[in-house]
This record gives sequence, C-alpha cells and structure tokens, in this order.
Amino acid sequence: MKAMVYYGENDIRFEEHAKPTLIESTDAIVRITKTTICGTDLGIWKGKNPEIDAGRILGHEGIGIVEEVGAGVKNIKVGDKVIISCVSKCCTCDNCKQQLYSHCRNGGWILGYMIDGTQAEFVRTPYADNSLIVLPDSVNEEVALLLSDALPTAHEIGVQYGDVKPGDTVFIAGAGPVGMSALLTAQLYSPATLIVCDMDENRLKLAKELGATHTINPVSGDVSKQVFDIVGQDGVDVAIEAVGLPATWDLCQEIVKAGGNLAVVGVHGKPVDFKLEKLWIKNLKITTGLVNANTTEMLMKAISTSSVDYTKMLTHHFKFSELEQAYDVFKHAAEHNAMKVVLTMD
Amino acid sequence: MKAMVYYGENDIRFEEHAKPTLIESTDAIVRITKTTICGTDLGIWKGKNPEIDAGRILGHEGIGIVEEVGAGVKNIKVGDKVIISCVSKCCTCDNCKQQLYSHCRNGGWILGYMIDGTQAEFVRTPYADNSLIVLPDSVNEEVALLLSDALPTAHEIGVQYGDVKPGDTVFIAGAGPVGMSALLTAQLYSPATLIVCDMDENRLKLAKELGATHTINPVSGDVSKQVFDIVGQDGVDVAIEAVGLPATWDLCQEIVKAGGNLAVVGVHGKPVDFKLEKLWIKNLKITTGLVNANTTEMLMKAISTSSVDYTKMLTHHFKFSELEQAYDVFKHAAEHNAMKVVLTMD
Amino acid sequence: MKAMVYYGENDIRFEEHAKPTLIESTDAIVRITKTTICGTDLGIWKGKNPEIDAGRILGHEGIGIVEEVGAGVKNIKVGDKVIISCVSKCCTCDNCKQQLYSHCRNGGWILGYMIDGTQAEFVRTPYADNSLIVLPDSVNEEVALLLSDALPTAHEIGVQYGDVKPGDTVFIAGAGPVGMSALLTAQLYSPATLIVCDMDENRLKLAKELGATHTINPVSGDVSKQVFDIVGQDGVDVAIEAVGLPATWDLCQEIVKAGGNLAVVGVHGKPVDFKLEKLWIKNLKITTGLVNANTTEMLMKAISTSSVDYTKMLTHHFKFSELEQAYDVFKHAAEHNAMKVVLTMD
Amino acid sequence: MKAMVYYGENDIRFEEHAKPTLIESTDAIVRITKTTICGTDLGIWKGKNPEIDAGRILGHEGIGIVEEVGAGVKNIKVGDKVIISCVSKCCTCDNCKQQLYSHCRNGGWILGYMIDGTQAEFVRTPYADNSLIVLPDSVNEEVALLLSDALPTAHEIGVQYGDVKPGDTVFIAGAGPVGMSALLTAQLYSPATLIVCDMDENRLKLAKELGATHTINPVSGDVSKQVFDIVGQDGVDVAIEAVGLPATWDLCQEIVKAGGNLAVVGVHGKPVDFKLEKLWIKNLKITTGLVNANTTEMLMKAISTSSVDYTKMLTHHFKFSELEQAYDVFKHAAEHNAMKVVLTMD
Repeated sequence: MKAMVYYGENDIRFEEHAKPTLIESTDAIVRITKTTICGTDLGIWKGKNPEIDAGRILGHEGIGIVEEVGAGVKNIKVGDKVIISCVSKCCTCDNCKQQLYSHCRNGGWILGYMIDGTQAEFVRTPYADNSLIVLPDSVNEEVALLLSDALPTAHEIGVQYGDVKPGDTVFIAGAGPVGMSALLTAQLYSPATLIVCDMDENRLKLAKELGATHTINPVSGDVSKQVFDIVGQDGVDVAIEAVGLPATWDLCQEIVKAGGNLAVVGVHGKPVDFKLEKLWIKNLKITTGLVNANTTEMLMKAISTSSVDYTKMLTHHFKFSELEQAYDVFKHAAEHNAMKVVLTMD
Repeated sequence: MKAMVYYGENDIRFEEHAKPTLIESTDAIVRITKTTICGTDLGIWKGKNPEIDAGRILGHEGIGIVEEVGAGVKNIKVGDKVIISCVSKCCTCDNCKQQLYSHCRNGGWILGYMIDGTQAEFVRTPYADNSLIVLPDSVNEEVALLLSDALPTAHEIGVQYGDVKPGDTVFIAGAGPVGMSALLTAQLYSPATLIVCDMDENRLKLAKELGATHTINPVSGDVSKQVFDIVGQDGVDVAIEAVGLPATWDLCQEIVKAGGNLAVVGVHGKPVDFKLEKLWIKNLKITTGLVNANTTEMLMKAISTSSVDYTKMLTHHFKFSELEQAYDVFKHAAEHNAMKVVLTMD
Repeated sequence: MKAMVYYGENDIRFEEHAKPTLIESTDAIVRITKTTICGTDLGIWKGKNPEIDAGRILGHEGIGIVEEVGAGVKNIKVGDKVIISCVSKCCTCDNCKQQLYSHCRNGGWILGYMIDGTQAEFVRTPYADNSLIVLPDSVNEEVALLLSDALPTAHEIGVQYGDVKPGDTVFIAGAGPVGMSALLTAQLYSPATLIVCDMDENRLKLAKELGATHTINPVSGDVSKQVFDIVGQDGVDVAIEAVGLPATWDLCQEIVKAGGNLAVVGVHGKPVDFKLEKLWIKNLKITTGLVNANTTEMLMKAISTSSVDYTKMLTHHFKFSELEQAYDVFKHAAEHNAMKVVLTMD
Repeated sequence: MKAMVYYGENDIRFEEHAKPTLIESTDAIVRITKTTICGTDLGIWKGKNPEIDAGRILGHEGIGIVEEVGAGVKNIKVGDKVIISCVSKCCTCDNCKQQLYSHCRNGGWILGYMIDGTQAEFVRTPYADNSLIVLPDSVNEEVALLLSDALPTAHEIGVQYGDVKPGDTVFIAGAGPVGMSALLTAQLYSPATLIVCDMDENRLKLAKELGATHTINPVSGDVSKQVFDIVGQDGVDVAIEAVGLPATWDLCQEIVKAGGNLAVVGVHGKPVDFKLEKLWIKNLKITTGLVNANTTEMLMKAISTSSVDYTKMLTHHFKFSELEQAYDVFKHAAEHNAMKVVLTMD
C-alpha cells in the first residue's frame, strides 16, 4: 500500500509500505477512506520529534471501513464505517480509570508517532472498541475527519477546561485548525462574545463566518486594549490559547478577568513567564492538556444541531495519491488560504 | 394608580389602588412599563392560594423604570430600565449565602403573593440591588418580560438541574410557558434531540418553530413508545416535567434512561407514585425546585446568541388598561392560541 | 471444590461443584481466601430473584489470589492478592464509557447472579483488569472484604450522590451493613452531625462506636421530631435511605431540608409515595442507583487515614467449611448481634 | 482606644486612636476580644504596601462582641459574639453575585488595609450581615481566630481549588500559618498522603503533630526526589504552594502528576517560570486566588469533627497591651518557634 513515511528531519516519503496486520486481539485493521494532515505532522516533518523511529507511517486522523478485527473486539464489526480517534485507550490502566485517556499507559497519542498511523491505505488501530467510533451516515464524512483530533482537542482542552458558559465572553488566540475548532465548539455552550485573534486576515474572515462576534489582527494595534474595548476593563471570562507561543500566553494572562479561566491548548516549545506577582490574587484557573477524546461521540451528536457550516473548515481537497501536494499546501497554509485539507482514497 | 387586586377565590378586581412608597432603605419603586400574567396568577384567581391576603396586588413579572430608590440602594439608580425578578433576595440570610435564593428567609417569591406585585402602574421592589436587573437597550423588551420568571425558572430548575449537555436527548412534558422556556433554554447547551409533548396542537406547532426536533401529542397513542422509537429503548438523558400532574410525572419516570436526570419544574398539587421498585437501580437524579433567579443575567446575555426567535413566545398584546381582557385570554389560552400575553402601559 | 449453590426459593446447597475455567481471554480465575454474605444473598435464598438459574454459585464479595489469567489480561498477574469487585466492567460499552459501570452492557452485577460467584473455593472473574483490585499488604484483609460491595455502594450511591460536605448534617435510615458503611464513608468528608436511625439497639450502639454523633430508635417516639430537635426545623442537608421500605423513604422525604439531598441506597420492592405537592418547591436532589465500583481504590487508600476502626464491622468469623452456619447467623443477624460475617478458607 | 497604626515603611506605632463610629447603615462596631497578626501585616510593616495611607489601623483578623449595628443590619445583633472575616462583602455587586467575594467591588480585603482594622479595641466592620459570623460557645475562641483568614484561605484557595479528594497524595510547600492551615483543612477530605515541606524543623515537627504523613526539609537533599520516593514517579495529585517564591513554584510544577492540580496560595512578588514546554501536555489545573471567605461557617462546623488539636496552631499568647512584643515575636517566628500569636484584650 502507499503511505507517508517519516525518515528524519525534513525527510518524509510517500512510498510503498507493507499493509498492517493484527498484533493484539483488541486491534482492528481499518481501510482508510479519508485522512488529513495535522499541524503536528508538519512539526514532525520539520524535525521537532526526533524521538520518532525512521520508517514510521505518519497521521493520526482519519475515517475508514473496518477490514478486520481481533478476537477480543466486541463492539466494532467488520464493515463498520468508523472515525479513528487520535488517542488510543486501553481503558484498564490507572490513568484510563481516571478518564485521563490522554495519559493511557498503553496508548495515548501513539498513532503516527509511536506506531504506524493513518496516512496510508490501511492502519492498525489498538483497542478498537475504545478508539474507533462508529460513524452514522447522517454525519458529513469530511466533518467527521475533524472528530479524530481537532474538534475534541479544542472542545476538551479549550472549551471544557475553560468552562465556557452561556453568556460568557471568550477570547481565542489563534485561528488555526484548533483555534477555529475552539470557536466552533465553544458555540455549543452559547457564549455571548467570541473574539478571535490571528495575524491572517483570511482566517479572521473565516472565523467571522464560523461564528466569531469579533476578530482582532495584532497588526491593527494593541490587542489587549481592543479586547478591553469590547468586553470592558475586567477582561474576558475565558481565554483560550491556541497557538503555543510565549506572546499569545502573555496576551491571554493579560486579558483574563478575576475569577476567569485560561485554557492552554497550544503546543508550547518554551517556558513562559507567568506573572504571578499580578495574578496570584485573581482567582484564576489555568489549564493545560492533551485531548482525552472522551467527547468525540458527544460532539458527533451535538454538531448536528449547529447552525454553523462546519464543512467550511475543510478548505482543500485532494486524492490520497496527491498527499505530497497536500502536505505542500498545508505547509504554506497562509498562501493557499488553507485550513484543513481532505485526502480521499482514490 | 390602577392595579389588579386579589380579594379571594374567583374574585380579582382591576381597580384604583394607592401608589406604593419606600418602606426599607433597600427598596426601590419601579414604574412598570410592561407586565404579563403567569399561570400562577391564574391559580391564585382560582383560589389555590387562600393564604394570600385580600387586597393584595397580583403579578411577579415585569419591566419598568426606576422611579425612586432607598438610601441603602447602591447599584440601581433612578431612571434605570430594569427587569423585576420574581424572586426577592436579601443576600444575607443563611439560604442566600448558599445561593438558595428561592428560599431567602426575608424574600423569595413574595411579589404579588406576600407583598404587592407588578400588575400595577408602580411596584415596590425589596432588595433592589439584588432583585432588579438593569436592562440594556439591546435586549428586546418583550423578551425581557420572560426573564422575570419563565426563562430562569425553566433554565435553572429544568435545564441546569437536569444537566442538559451537548448531544443529549431531552424530553419536555408540557408546552406551556415554562415547558416552552425549557425548550428555548435547553438549546443553549446544544442537545441533539428535543422532544416536546403536549395535547395542544398549536403549542406543538410553536414548539417546532422554537426548536423542538420532535413533538408528540398523547392523543396519537402511547407516548413512551413514541419516545423509545425516537431515542431507543434506553430512554432519554433528561426528562423535564413541566406540567405538574401525576400523569406527566409517570411518563417522565418511565422514559428516563439509567444514569439520566428527571427535573421536575411543574407545580404539583398531589403526591405522585414513585416506582422505586424499578428505579432504585437506575442511577437517576431527580430534582425539584423554585427558581433562584441566579441566571437571569446569564440568560439575558446568552439569548442574544440564539438563532431562535424568542418573541414568538409573546403571542398576545394588550394595553395595561385591558388587563381584565388579557386575563380572560390567558385563562382560555388554548382557544386563543395564547402563550404569553404582554401588557404595555398606556 | 465446595460452593454455595442456588436451586430455588429456600433451597441453597453447600456442595461440591466443578472448579471454574477461563472462558474469555479477559477472564481471571481467583482462588478465594475470604468471602462474606450480603443481604442480597439472603434475598436470593428467600426467593426474591426467581430469574436466577438453578445451579448458580452465589456470592459477589471476596478477596483472593489470582490463579490464572486469560491472554488478554494486562495488569493483573498470577499470584496477585486482589479484591473482587461486585461489579464486572467491560469498559468498552456505551454505559461504561459514561462511567456508568453499574449498567455495563456486558457486565454490571452478574457475579453470583448471572454467572457463578464468590462463595466457592475458586471463581472466574470477567474483565479481570477492570474488576479486580490489587490489594496491598497494608490493607486489613477483613476490611478489604467490605470493599467488594458494602463500602463502595454506600460511598457512591449514598455519600457521593448525596454530596456530603464538611460541616453537613446527615441522616442515615438503617444501620445494616450498607447504612453502617454510609456512616463510615460519610466521615471521609467531615460532616458535623451524623444521625443514624435503626430499630436494633445493638446496631445503634455500634453506630456510635463507628462515628455516629446521634442515634435514634423509632420505638422512642416520632423520629422526625427527634431529628428536628437535633438539627433544627429546616431538617438535614443529606438524608441517606439505606433500608428499602416505604416507611424509611417517607421519613427521609420529611426531614430533608430545602436545597438538600436524598440519596436512596436501599433496594426497594414497592413504589413509594413522593409528596411532590410539598416537595416540588424545595429544590431537592433525589438519587438512586446501583454501585459503579469506581471508588473502590479511592476508598482503599482513604480508609487508611480513618481514626475509626472499620474492623468492628466484621462481627463474626467462620471457616469456609462453616458457610451454612454463617448463613444461619447472618439470616438471624439481630439475635446474633451480627453485622458482617467473614468466611476464611480452611 | 489603643491601636496599631501604620505610618510607613518600618514605622508602625501602638498608640491612642479615636474609637470608630458607624458610617453606613450596614456597618457594625465590634469590640475586639482577641486578635492576631498575619504575615501580611509583617509585609506592610516592611513597606511592601506603600499604597496604604499613613494613619491606618492594621489587622484583618479577630473575634469580638458586637457593640453597635447600623439600621440596615438584619441578622447580626448587639451582644453577638462574632468572628470578623478578613473579607468584606457587599453581596450586591457583579463579582459578589458570582460568589467571587474576594473581588467585591465595594469590599474585598479592605480591613487593616483600605479601612481601619482589627488590631484595636474596636473596629468598624462594613456589611456586617455578610462579614461577621456568629460564634457559638462550643467553638474554641482561639481556633475561631484562625477562621478570620488563615483557615478559609488555605481551605478555599489551597484545598478546594486543589480539589483534594479521599485517598489523594498532597504536597504542601511551606509550613507557615497558611501552609499549616492547608494541612489541617485538607484532612477534612481524607487524603491518604500529606507531605509538608519547610526549612524550619520546628514547623515540620508541628506539621507531624497536625497530621502530616511525611515531612521534608530541603536541607536533606533533592525535594522532588524525596517526593517521588514517597508517592511514585508520577508525582502528587495535588500540590499546594503556600510560600510565594519562585523556588516553591518550581518545586510544585515539577512534582505534580499528569491530571493533577497545583493550587497557588502563596503571595508572590515576582513572575515565575512556567515550564509549558513540559507541562502543556500534562492536563494540569493551576489555580490562584484571594480568599472568598465563603466557607468560614462550613469550617466552623466541620472542625468540630476533627481528631486533630487545632489549638496547637496558637503558639504564643499575649495581652493586647503587649502587641508590640507580639509583633516582635511573630517577626522572628523561627527563633521563637511561633506559628500564630493570640492577643487577648486586657
């Protein structure tokens, strides 16, 4: 089969690879029908994860048809159309028993990282009963792709940890796929004000179409001042940091109100300066984390109620055979005005 | 001034009454601009509350302009346009300190019940700082009327106690003003399925317009069976009882799933049969209660985000001088296809 | 091996039975070292569960040594000393994914009910990774027996659903093993007042030793009045019903305060009369349920901190070969002043 | 009357001062019977709060007898024995309505800071109904002093924000009055392991007496390693930072487990380095804050159940006329082996 394989920094190859086979009795083999590329995959390409073995198939998002299941698989059946969750869960370790599936001792985020992933014609998925979600025909298949990672990550680590409530004022730093997914899933809880900040005007335009009540481009001047002009000098109820840089952390800690929440969804590569001398007194809740993927089904049900068109997130469409081209477009997302790319099996 | 005054069973009179004056330093006098009639007012008229003193002005809903404030009022100012909450809160008693404002030792639901109410040109409101909500011009004044009682009651006692979550299946027994308000405010949390049950086809039609995904008229056959056909044999995540009769209680306890919630919002006049022999094992949460009115401002902010037209709840419009006629229409709501009536000061 | 086998109403036999073998790859075989008898077992004996197949080995409580594990068992190893949870959890069905393990589609309470149980020399335990808890040597083995069922049931369905908080007033109806376990586990949250009500003076005496601040015997007069004398006319913050009769339900609904919680832990055989005409207004939370056994490990860790001597719950000790005698004592618990009996393998 | 008055850095004077009088109708005048000194008072003395007006009476802790109440005071009566909360709450502003009393727009921490405080024979207390707690004779008066600030601060900002649960492993950095109060109030929730870290051996000894299961003195070597040796390499469920220095922050962020909580109670004067590059993935909850004093009564009730002797916190006793001497002892707490000092009116 064809697959996108990692060999090291700046060296990924779209090449022939052996088809996966069942290893554990709780595995399934899924024939991929659609997959996509995550910012994390770009990071791997750039060499940010040297711990990855050469020869690893990339990708942790996708939908497909179950081709084969191990003897221990109870709920998933051959022929099921499924969403592949980016998080594999054994459901028996101490962390899983605490619903901290992101830190599963036997799984977690391993697909396309510690084990072969979804940017391939077939993938082996561990703990199939826990890590595959049966996809009803009523759910748009392209939107379903977002349920592998982007939507649950933004929802759990941004919106739920940030405790977005009806009537709240919410600030989202970053309008990439995760920030935009926070914008989408925050609306499930009816906040009154949704401010999205990004440097890409195209993304801000899309944010408006997807429900932002206000957008801010930092080139237009002091972001904090603009936020305070919108919500008042106390700041916002919830700040969601979806970039992963010290600058956006700084912005978020500056504009969150006393008693508010700051949810870090961004993947950070450096320490940040936490202004405890000002913030010790502010009764803040600050959260971080990796997705537990425990709201995937909730989201699958809930987005049916949305008046927002989630398919606008899927900006570019390719055949799977064009995966290298899709990587190129996604790498230069701003030029191409790209949000998420869809790869459909030929 | 003119006011609707209670004298006893089947004896309410729209008559001249002395204008109220400040009694406590924390009082305000509000000039009513719009008021409405609650099902509870009809109950009083029918004699269900013989504990009420003859001579009492009815009404616990309304908006108006603050005419005068006591020396101890800090936040509310003369000239403010305000929503009058149906619940008066001292905020200093033991129950208020537990946010159980409904059971305020010095307040609670007293307006139009233990003290003179809002179906008058002026009303004295105790604990003005806590019981009046400043109404921005951006909020529709007729919708604001619903924030005195119907919306917070349905939201707090139905939706919040029932813990409606994104993707949930919700059953609402009764499409009167409170059941319909549960339908509206449940949508703030994006349930996937919203089933409304009522015997009045007009109300079911309105429920559909206001967001119900399904409606059931009991005349069409076994309601439980119809619910199971929609959501599966396990039943619904949340059942909201908004009628107040044993029959609707029975229905709710029959169709709520294991691990689900049954929120009683209806005002009950008789005991009900609680089938603990079947339900002890079902991990249910059953709740009851009177509104705490602690989400009025949250709702005021959140409903701005709704794609549903809340004004459809206000089906009939009268001048205040036509209050008797409005009572008559509301009393025969089905005939008139009435949901809530609006009385506007002449 | 020897086992206690059910044949029908009033017909249980302590007899030779084939040793169990692994069926599923996720099973374990446990050699029982200690077991006990539950009130439910007495009910089965009396014929309350005619749905049980003749030939079924009874018992859902016990500790033992793992003798054999299936190929799919990851965390539990041969030789581990374990607590056997009364609830078997697949952890992959929809209910398990909601942490509603009590209603596991493939498990739940099945031991000694739908599959052979623990009143035997060996038992097959399904989903061993999820349903066995490794028992450290630091935990008293007799107290560990209480962790199979009594303590988690009382804790989860009584104390946690009842939301016992520091400083609370708590009423517990019934001082049997579950009521007494509620008394014990409530203390993990430091309530100020713990009132236990039972008709057996010996049990009330034990309740005092185990931490009750007050005890009430209904023969002494109006229980409600006595409760109000202790806690004031508003009633208690939390009422835990641990008997399963209409009379104790009635008592609980009478003495719970506005804003309070009524947690039903008792197994009820008849409907009860729910006085909604008085209680609709009281902002109550009423809960029911079967144990999820998701706090077994939490309890195992926490009881180490207790200043109360949990071993007083284990009033009678027998060899396993004396199981019939133990049943007889437990059946006539009042005469024997028995709370829980311990059966130790010969 | 005599009072301790602030005049500037290193200049506080125990001198004659006019007795306070009622200003607002919601005020009370309390005759102090016992007061104490807080670390914050030492900070003021050292010049950390130049924003304080010269002539301000210090102190925000104390108990006393109500001498006079304003016309608007409903619940508190002349002659009541009361605890004076360090936080004054209007209960009508937007923050109070969110139970964020610490950020009351008209109060908050103002006693001995923005208005005259409790290190005097009499004090004016604003919002008496909300800010005074009637003290039953059953509560030890010296322990009651801890309820003004230390215990609720540690409980709310450390233990509750940190979400300490039965069976948890808890690390407390700092064994000063607040860290020690966290140790005491954490026990209300029955954690299994309570590790206290401090450089003062006397304080560690007291921590053991007050319930610490382990103590660590950093002079003994790498603290993190010692913590991991006790609780395992994953770290602790809850880390409570009760010092206010970058070093203790660093320690806490190093030893908190994935899915754990880090509650900052310390008053910080500098920014800290937040290692988001390691912690973004750990699903942490980090909290900060000033006490809301909404659990004072809960604590007052709950501590009656404790088997720990809270009076050991009160290490030194003085007459009020010896206040300067008490300041001196408290300033050199380590030398004097002092925790909290009690000043009793002569």
